[in-house]
Amino acid sequence: MNILIIHAHPEPQSFCTALKNTAIEELQKQGHQIEVSDLYAMNFNPVASAADFAERGNADYLNYALEQRHACQQKVLAHDIQTEVEKVQKADLLILNFPMYWMSMPALLKGWIDRVFVSGIFYGGKRFYNHGGMTGKKAMLSFTLGGRDHMFGEGAIHGSMDNILIPIQRGTLAYVGYDVLPPFIAYHVPYISQEAREQILLDYRQHLHNIENLPAIVFPTLEQFDDKLYPLKNA
Amino acid sequence: MNILIIHAHPEPQSFCTALKNTAIEELQKQGHQIEVSDLYAMNFNPVASAADFAERGNADYLNYALEQRHACQQKVLAHDIQTEVEKVQKADLLILNFPMYWMSMPALLKGWIDRVFVSGIFYGGKRFYNHGGMTGKKAMLSFTLGGRDHMFGEGAIHGSMDNILIPIQRGTLAYVGYDVLPPFIAYHVPYISQEAREQILLDYRQHLHNIENLPAIVFPTLEQFDDKLYPLKNA
Repeated sequence: MNILIIHAHPEPQSFCTALKNTAIEELQKQGHQIEVSDLYAMNFNPVASAADFAERGNADYLNYALEQRHACQQKVLAHDIQTEVEKVQKADLLILNFPMYWMSMPALLKGWIDRVFVSGIFYGGKRFYNHGGMTGKKAMLSFTLGGRDHMFGEGAIHGSMDNILIPIQRGTLAYVGYDVLPPFIAYHVPYISQEAREQILLDYRQHLHNIENLPAIVFPTLEQFDDKLYPLKNA
Repeated sequence: MNILIIHAHPEPQSFCTALKNTAIEELQKQGHQIEVSDLYAMNFNPVASAADFAERGNADYLNYALEQRHACQQKVLAHDIQTEVEKVQKADLLILNFPMYWMSMPALLKGWIDRVFVSGIFYGGKRFYNHGGMTGKKAMLSFTLGGRDHMFGEGAIHGSMDNILIPIQRGTLAYVGYDVLPPFIAYHVPYISQEAREQILLDYRQHLHNIENLPAIVFPTLEQFDDKLYPLKNA
């Protein structure tokens, strides 16, 4: 497989960076081709704005998604966006590797999504979920957080991690067509021993070793809904 | 009340901007004091990084939350962060006003949270949820999106909006102690008539007119959990 890792941690010595490096090593050992976008190192711009469009479909009023479609058609996407889009298109597997900030991605990674998941390529019209632009490709999250695993789940203080990840796994990755693989989650990272960290890296190797057999998370398909996206009674 | 509106839309003529302007007008009419941070107009930097700390607790290894705590104690928070923190501290009600991007906030607003919701002021140790730093204050989302309301809910194509908003309403606003008021959601905005838009603005005025009586969303309290944050059996 061609694999793209998007990495977004401000500290090069972080455990999150060690996860990224472990993935590169383990996946290369399996014969995969790896590409990495290290967003902090690239000084990537995360702010979707009018500056992304040198040429506008409508110069008087910015609708960001419509301008994305226009820029795709005219092949005038901003250079930094075009570069990232091409990496994503080449990749059979996309891994987002990040520290969880506020039950979500750091803004730098969120902005990579905002700017790179372009309307007209990733989705558009009825091309979403199992008809999205990235259908046939896989995506996976690997992330670190401070909380312990018992703080997540039904009845736990923060609620279920599956619910917390809905905007990313369902609303973003599955929405553009990806088969979303189970995430790799490193809990309580700032507080654990060196031995515990090494065990997590071993667990991550195991998770990655098995990656071609991991079953994707099940999300709704468009076939369960009618033309106006009301649920079909028999679906 | 002192009310702070954080606004994050790249188009000054947008309907999202009209929501913000409607809130200012309606809330001033009620006698409240309004302050606005227009993040695009301010060219706010959303990227949490080492550059936020002129003086470091640990110069060799960046743990962002630990450096936030250090910078609080030493009173050396970056100027743009300190300014926003003071606005938040002054406000009895915080309104986040934004277009929904990828079932979440635009990166620019996410980065305002990442950088401004400082460890040591907003939360820290056992100061979170109903013991968070913003206890006694209220917060509310107002946002626009392209989807229609029937696309959200149990069994709907995108699932329930309450679930989609968990990372923001529960994991962020309630986590730091806010009473989270019901959101105001403007559906299908890019596709509706001028009359429908005007109706939404009237609905928003009504929502705001009643704001001091809106009941907060119920989230778990720390008293339902033991010292290690395991659920208490009788809670």
